[in-house]
Amino acid sequence: MIRIVTLTYGVVLMLAGAAQAGDLPPEPVTTFTLDNGMMVVVAEDHRAPVVTHMVWYRSGSADEPVGQSGVAHFLEHLLFKGTDRLEPGEFSATVAKNGGSDNAFTSYDYTAYYQRVASDRLELMMQMESDRMVNLRLGEGDIATERAVIIEERNQRVENNPSALFGEQIGATQYLNHRYGVPIIGWRHEMDALDLNDALDFYHLHYAPNNAILVVAGDVTPEAVRPLAEKYYGSIPANTDLPLRLRPAEPPQIAERRVTLRDARVAQPYVSRSYLAQERDSGAQHKAAALELLAEVLGGGTTSYLTEKLQFDTQVAVYTGAYYTGLALDSTTFDLIIVPAEGVTLAEAEAALDKVLADFLATGIDAEHLARIKMQLRASEIYARDDVGGIGNRYGRALTQGLSIADVQEWPDILQAVSEADIMAAAHEVFDLRRSVTGWLMQEGVSQ
Amino acid sequence: MIRIVTLTYGVVLMLAGAAQAGDLPPEPVTTFTLDNGMMVVVAEDHRAPVVTHMVWYRSGSADEPVGQSGVAHFLEHLLFKGTDRLEPGEFSATVAKNGGSDNAFTSYDYTAYYQRVASDRLELMMQMESDRMVNLRLGEGDIATERAVIIEERNQRVENNPSALFGEQIGATQYLNHRYGVPIIGWRHEMDALDLNDALDFYHLHYAPNNAILVVAGDVTPEAVRPLAEKYYGSIPANTDLPLRLRPAEPPQIAERRVTLRDARVAQPYVSRSYLAQERDSGAQHKAAALELLAEVLGGGTTSYLTEKLQFDTQVAVYTGAYYTGLALDSTTFDLIIVPAEGVTLAEAEAALDKVLADFLATGIDAEHLARIKMQLRASEIYARDDVGGIGNRYGRALTQGLSIADVQEWPDILQAVSEADIMAAAHEVFDLRRSVTGWLMQEGVSQ
Repeated sequence: MIRIVTLTYGVVLMLAGAAQAGDLPPEPVTTFTLDNGMMVVVAEDHRAPVVTHMVWYRSGSADEPVGQSGVAHFLEHLLFKGTDRLEPGEFSATVAKNGGSDNAFTSYDYTAYYQRVASDRLELMMQMESDRMVNLRLGEGDIATERAVIIEERNQRVENNPSALFGEQIGATQYLNHRYGVPIIGWRHEMDALDLNDALDFYHLHYAPNNAILVVAGDVTPEAVRPLAEKYYGSIPANTDLPLRLRPAEPPQIAERRVTLRDARVAQPYVSRSYLAQERDSGAQHKAAALELLAEVLGGGTTSYLTEKLQFDTQVAVYTGAYYTGLALDSTTFDLIIVPAEGVTLAEAEAALDKVLADFLATGIDAEHLARIKMQLRASEIYARDDVGGIGNRYGRALTQGLSIADVQEWPDILQAVSEADIMAAAHEVFDLRRSVTGWLMQEGVSQ
Repeated sequence: MIRIVTLTYGVVLMLAGAAQAGDLPPEPVTTFTLDNGMMVVVAEDHRAPVVTHMVWYRSGSADEPVGQSGVAHFLEHLLFKGTDRLEPGEFSATVAKNGGSDNAFTSYDYTAYYQRVASDRLELMMQMESDRMVNLRLGEGDIATERAVIIEERNQRVENNPSALFGEQIGATQYLNHRYGVPIIGWRHEMDALDLNDALDFYHLHYAPNNAILVVAGDVTPEAVRPLAEKYYGSIPANTDLPLRLRPAEPPQIAERRVTLRDARVAQPYVSRSYLAQERDSGAQHKAAALELLAEVLGGGTTSYLTEKLQFDTQVAVYTGAYYTGLALDSTTFDLIIVPAEGVTLAEAEAALDKVLADFLATGIDAEHLARIKMQLRASEIYARDDVGGIGNRYGRALTQGLSIADVQEWPDILQAVSEADIMAAAHEVFDLRRSVTGWLMQEGVSQ
């Protein structure tokens, strides 16, 4: 079974997350809350007799206790061990036997579990998922086995990948105080020490109906979902000790930072730049929308500003990118990347990037370019409708990261309403080197 | 009343901490432990009829809960408020009325309170200090008043001082995971939010006899101290919920980092460089001793290597320094500083520093220079004997930072036993740019 985990912060294009058509009516989404505080979201789509059943916990790696990095993701793995009713591995085997597929993923702000099955198997999924919300049974053997698995996962994805190591070092340097600076998968030395108590403490504190959101998307009706949700999830008592979700905020970032990682395995050196940026906030998404469009204008596709200036006009770079990670509970980042062409040093590439940014700030946006981007966003919103799992994903991610259903549904129109002036104002604000980290990933022993 | 707090990490010369003569017999120090776990250290010195009475808590800013930076120091201030027996301010007034002086200080690893009084007032000090260990009475008014005081202290010492701000940003960049990266005085936005519960929670968790060390130095005997200690401190029950002192360790530091702070108030720009370094560990102080001597060789006084090469020979710098902060519970730093001469840019100064370091690594140590340093260390150990308060300070700092009485007493001989090869090995190990932060403090608007 594949586990999806966002290993390096930033540099994940979230275009899909922006997709929902404002010209279209909003998706038929129904929400209600069970007596124990569990939120339920039902997104109807009757085009095929399948359903995606997801449980999202409002707890991720940024909610971990200090010194136990990786425990949220570790616990995600352990949820596939046994309960009072199920043998280890039986959960996924049962899903597969019923013709479905299942998976789980952990990020900074959430942990989520889902199954995609024929819609007449929904009750079975609810019965099993609600069971492991509270009845997990773990032994020391499970811990040793699964700890080896997550460490191997870290080896594969991070230790063997200079870009991932680079991303970790940049993240740790970007955040002076907040746990977004600690990798989701965990620092290796802390993963080594994770034990049964750490996993159970996180489980008992965070896995409860009043910290969870049930998302059911597909060929179902709210009327059918409600009694099942009440039967399986509604019978679980709320955790009255659930902690407030208060993370340490960043102090004012006042000093430009730089990180250089040299690694013998680097085949292609590059420069990355991240700036601390405002995230999407409930009822106040306008600035985030401007940043989202700024990323598109600068780095979205082959007609973008950076591509045109740095790849076509001057041929300084073989690749450029701009990324904004708007979905986050707390302060996020706006990221730029430039991969220099053969014979161009990192210093030259960085200087060229800064020159182009300065030109952009001075000259502003081409109106036609912006109109084209907005049209593409509309199109992608329509395509996104076809992915039922994606709809559940979109609501689950938003709701665990401080947004509401209305925020999700208003987002496409907020994006369309962004003006050129809004984007330039956002650019002038976000491109502040005092809140930035510039990273050079270099080959060991090669001077630049 | 003055509060001493180490505001910026590093850059504090600890020569005094190294002082104790190996040629001299060890100081007459007696230790014992009360039934409730409180350690007592008595250092006799009968040359004058005075005594220094200190209580050291094994808790400092690095033991604070996440998001509550500054609470250890805040609580230190609040301990001068009232108890059941004493009015606010009465503690220090009583000390003064008895001809004594008192103070307190907070660091990463400890919080300490002391009074210096005529030795016949020792019992009164014990009565008052043991009283406020458990009987503190705080109201909302105390919180509001004293929070304004610590914020004003931060304004004075940090916000108005670009060097202090610079030190904070460097510290936060040096430590990727450990709380030594958070300032002792606290991040301003977290200080603003400190409340009565935060202070009381820290107090109830950490202020207990089994987390404290009583140090009495001066004109006393262990025989006189013991019954008083038992009467006043021995009657306080141990805190059985005292947490283990486990701090999050650093992940491998693999990427060179840089910080640039531009501030209009900077009169004198400079370059600072810090390297993660091993601290003094109990029973294993040899590497730390080599680092201590390395700092002396490179930066101690006018005959040091950096001074000679950068100030006299080439006149690139008007000041250079090398500092090693060996006393720390967890990984510490080795720091270099170069203040360029008029007309020398920061880039030129940094390049000159790196060139001189490379030369030093290639050529090694002048044997006569090392012998002279060791002789000076012996002399300073003898001088240090004259400062009775300093003796208490030395033991208190060591014992709260993981060392034993034996470690303190062996330290001078360990320093003397360090060879040139030991120092060079330590230098080759510590000067690893991958574990370093290089800082440029610059005047706003001036390019370098």
